[in-house]
Amino acid sequence: MATNPDNFLWSGVHSGVKNSRKLDLGLVYSSYPSTVAGVFTGNNLPAAPVREARARLNDCEQFRGLVVNSGVANAAMGQVGIEDNQEVISAAADCLNLEKEEILTASTGYIGRRLPVENIREHIPAAVDNLKKSPDEFSRGILTTDTRRKVVREPVEELGATMMGVAKGSGMINPRMATMLAFIFFDHPVEPGWWRAQLPDACDNSFNLITVDGDTSTNDTVLAWAAGLPGKEEIDGSHSAAPAVSGALQRVCEQLAYEIVRDGEGATCTVEVLVEGAKNDAAAARVAEEVAGSPLVRTAFYGRDPNWGRIYSAVGAAGVSLQADKLNLQLNGTDVFDGGEPVETDPGLKSDMKEIDQHTVTVDLGLDNGSARRVTCDLSEDYVTINSNYG
Amino acid sequence: MATNPDNFLWSGVHSGVKNSRKLDLGLVYSSYPSTVAGVFTGNNLPAAPVREARARLNDCEQFRGLVVNSGVANAAMGQVGIEDNQEVISAAADCLNLEKEEILTASTGYIGRRLPVENIREHIPAAVDNLKKSPDEFSRGILTTDTRRKVVREPVEELGATMMGVAKGSGMINPRMATMLAFIFFDHPVEPGWWRAQLPDACDNSFNLITVDGDTSTNDTVLAWAAGLPGKEEIDGSHSAAPAVSGALQRVCEQLAYEIVRDGEGATCTVEVLVEGAKNDAAAARVAEEVAGSPLVRTAFYGRDPNWGRIYSAVGAAGVSLQADKLNLQLNGTDVFDGGEPVETDPGLKSDMKEIDQHTVTVDLGLDNGSARRVTCDLSEDYVTINSNYG
Repeated sequence: MATNPDNFLWSGVHSGVKNSRKLDLGLVYSSYPSTVAGVFTGNNLPAAPVREARARLNDCEQFRGLVVNSGVANAAMGQVGIEDNQEVISAAADCLNLEKEEILTASTGYIGRRLPVENIREHIPAAVDNLKKSPDEFSRGILTTDTRRKVVREPVEELGATMMGVAKGSGMINPRMATMLAFIFFDHPVEPGWWRAQLPDACDNSFNLITVDGDTSTNDTVLAWAAGLPGKEEIDGSHSAAPAVSGALQRVCEQLAYEIVRDGEGATCTVEVLVEGAKNDAAAARVAEEVAGSPLVRTAFYGRDPNWGRIYSAVGAAGVSLQADKLNLQLNGTDVFDGGEPVETDPGLKSDMKEIDQHTVTVDLGLDNGSARRVTCDLSEDYVTINSNYG
Repeated sequence: MATNPDNFLWSGVHSGVKNSRKLDLGLVYSSYPSTVAGVFTGNNLPAAPVREARARLNDCEQFRGLVVNSGVANAAMGQVGIEDNQEVISAAADCLNLEKEEILTASTGYIGRRLPVENIREHIPAAVDNLKKSPDEFSRGILTTDTRRKVVREPVEELGATMMGVAKGSGMINPRMATMLAFIFFDHPVEPGWWRAQLPDACDNSFNLITVDGDTSTNDTVLAWAAGLPGKEEIDGSHSAAPAVSGALQRVCEQLAYEIVRDGEGATCTVEVLVEGAKNDAAAARVAEEVAGSPLVRTAFYGRDPNWGRIYSAVGAAGVSLQADKLNLQLNGTDVFDGGEPVETDPGLKSDMKEIDQHTVTVDLGLDNGSARRVTCDLSEDYVTINSNYG
């Protein structure tokens, strides 16, 4: 297990945004100016902190502070939401002795509810006092219905550096971002243009492959922070360590994405959908999304039922042209449909399913070389229970 | 309540396709040659009976018999499925003393399981003996996880005629057809071209507006049968009764669609989503489908929680350009978001929700005149329970 990255301090406190006694306010302090890259929700009604952070990242490359609250999304609040977000930024800037322009924010939680700014302002001094070299409390302070905190670390040995990712996920998870926040911290300077070019690719191959319920939220945010001693050489594309750094970024994003889907609301298992042999990658992605997004496929996995007919039906529903006699379907590596007909399967397929919590569906369309991958979790009664009693 | 249409006889028996003792085989006999119009699933891996019926309707306009089984979909079975379907057609033709070309079939149930043709063949004589002027047993014989039969009737008074619709629905319900079968019977001759032109429009404004779980199945079929005394004047577009007939067809489809969504798997209420003020109808449809398809919106209705933030988020996730300050959201006729900000709502909104089982969401984008409508049901734990223990 790698250590935590240097040059950052984290804290988490309870401020009263949530009614429970849970931590609901996270703070990050970057000892040196951090180069920050960001990727945000595809939702066309983004929350106030998303609008603000997107604009800030356009204007500026370096930041020192991050305030994250859970419990209220500060979305759908109009001008009041913008002003409330500014209040939080001002309070943090005052307490950290930074400029307002050096602070970013993110929020997650109930949409259409006003952020209790007074509570946050009152508790920011405690969050500052609580800053420490462990992300433990921060990683808990940003959670909503998540059942566990999500922290992953990747060393970049040739630089003696460490990259760490902290995320919250749970529901509203879908490609093109969802209600998920992920923050990545790297204790080495980077060249801003190069760093910002790495993040979208890393997101495409991680957060944009997972789906829990097909909902894309107003607040999704990934922010990748990198800070090191001023004067230390910045990593850019020509640096010998560039592949190691972008590889670490990719792995951190992949691991966080997997942690998010594994902790999907009510999930008891994960389902990886691999599509091959499509006319092109876009067609493969449509098939993979249809299978991974199908409630009937996902309830079958919850019941550990090898009901591959639902996978077959979802493949057919994806809107891409198909030839049934070229189609091959595998469930956990076992052929279930091949050459236009069902394959007689061992009754053991069903009992084996009960033993494992990482399932794989492979769909070979047999047409060309397009491929895609998506990861989802099963759909249980608990997903419904959690979401019909929220807030 | 109108009577049943003349000129048709219906029956339903238990043949052993289902393991339970429930009726699983439905038969219809048309006393005169019926003009039949059909609309089928958009799934690119259609089941054997869909492939066969689609081909038959291309070749021919008139039919006399219909065999429907529930329990096994006869999908994903390749050549064996095609042959099994032919066996059923042959058996019915023999017993009804008709040509094979005069018989249509439809199936619904488990995908990837072989149709027990012997059982069906053995029980077709009983189904023929059981033919009667009431659709009661037929309407039960075609059900799967439906909790009630779905039969609607519309008189066409100026012709002294009656149109009746019989359907099964439950899960896998989505626009562009889903696991639903609907059969419409009209006891008056019609001009084939005109009749066939009416059905797609009627489906667009009914079955294609409903969604239960976003899944589009391999077996969806709508067949509209019209038969009257040979020599009686056919209805076509120039006939004075044409608007009454196409109006009845529209209403029959609308009522069946509503019955299907009301009986969605695990449903406790319906939710009608009306979108107005979009740039065009296509953009409005995308928003309506995103809202009606959102598991988070649907679980909120199950919990009778006026959590309009989820509606707001789904609107933003639809991929159409928006202006938050022009957006108006209404929940059951009450403004909840207007002019870019939440509207303070009466706590009564929540208690009122508990009293009703037909909810309405109105989304006015405030941009132009595009509009769309979709109808869904809520998402309950029972949907998951039903679908994780299926088969």
